[in-house]
Amino acid sequence: MKINNSNFKFVSLNKNKSNYANRGLGLESDINLSNEYYRINDIAYIYKKPTPIKLVNVDYKVGKIKEAYFETPSTTDYNGIYKGKYLDFEAKETNSKTSFSLSNIHSHQIKHLIDVKRHGAISFLIVRFNTLNETYLLSTDLLEQFIKNYERKSIPLSFFKEYGKIIKVKYSPRIDYLEVINNLYFGGN
Amino acid sequence: MKINNSNFKFVSLNKNKSNYANRGLGLESDINLSNEYYRINDIAYIYKKPTPIKLVNVDYKVGKIKEAYFETPSTTDYNGIYKGKYLDFEAKETNSKTSFSLSNIHSHQIKHLIDVKRHGAISFLIVRFNTLNETYLLSTDLLEQFIKNYERKSIPLSFFKEYGKIIKVKYSPRIDYLEVINNLYFGGN
Repeated sequence: MKINNSNFKFVSLNKNKSNYANRGLGLESDINLSNEYYRINDIAYIYKKPTPIKLVNVDYKVGKIKEAYFETPSTTDYNGIYKGKYLDFEAKETNSKTSFSLSNIHSHQIKHLIDVKRHGAISFLIVRFNTLNETYLLSTDLLEQFIKNYERKSIPLSFFKEYGKIIKVKYSPRIDYLEVINNLYFGGN
Repeated sequence: MKINNSNFKFVSLNKNKSNYANRGLGLESDINLSNEYYRINDIAYIYKKPTPIKLVNVDYKVGKIKEAYFETPSTTDYNGIYKGKYLDFEAKETNSKTSFSLSNIHSHQIKHLIDVKRHGAISFLIVRFNTLNETYLLSTDLLEQFIKNYERKSIPLSFFKEYGKIIKVKYSPRIDYLEVINNLYFGGN
């Protein structure tokens, strides 16, 4: 099976190895295109981290990996710098029309978002509801509050609608999540 | 050839695929152990980015990578947050006793260090002279000045001695580069 990097990137969004189709590619490529736009215009330097791979069999003579497996990332997928601030976030998609299951995020990733926030980072979650074609930004503060105050293992869409911020889909940048960050953390300036 | 992750990490320091032995492992594992110490003690959250892999053949049924190749990273190896600041650096080793060849760093990595610095990051280079067992921290400012003012394609050891900061090797953290950052950027507090 021949695949290219964009396939790889989309794979890297799928923590569970099932249902590669219809998940990941859309949001991730939107974010990568937006980050490219931010870099080209010297607005921010934010990158997606490569997916960690566990190497099992490598031919170093030709630098060829013959056997390897996807590993669980120890942190979030994206980080970088914007307006002097450390930015860190995880991006997920769901096909549910009603809620986002927290099982989509590893607990150590949530811990990471909280840890870096405590140290002064702007950290958040980007969640896209594929079937509704709505993308929300949810700050780590709100994510923490939800986990603290609710028994539920999934965040209802209504919570995103009430407390999250919707991210507009444009031509360029594809999804201008820094516009939301600007309003939330920099008074829209 | 069976190898484990630590091998992988050490491979990932070697941008040229030659001479895997005696290079990389020392400094990289020192930095990884130090970053772990910083995280455990809630001092800083700095991680090494996984090496990007170009996938060619993957069996998604079992999540097994059957053919892949190492790619050139688009950014530096390490970034994270310390005292509310975005930190970004590249770490390299040299077996030379007299100088560090700039051919060890990709030009786009130097550009990245300069770009993030311009946006408020603390960015720098960590260079270890293996044969001397001396490790230096060189800020991006100094790296830029050297490139601007000298024709030379390699930075002499004397430049590191005069302008760089030596990083002490301790028991824990192995190399306390944040102590140097503290003195350089936070007045030692």
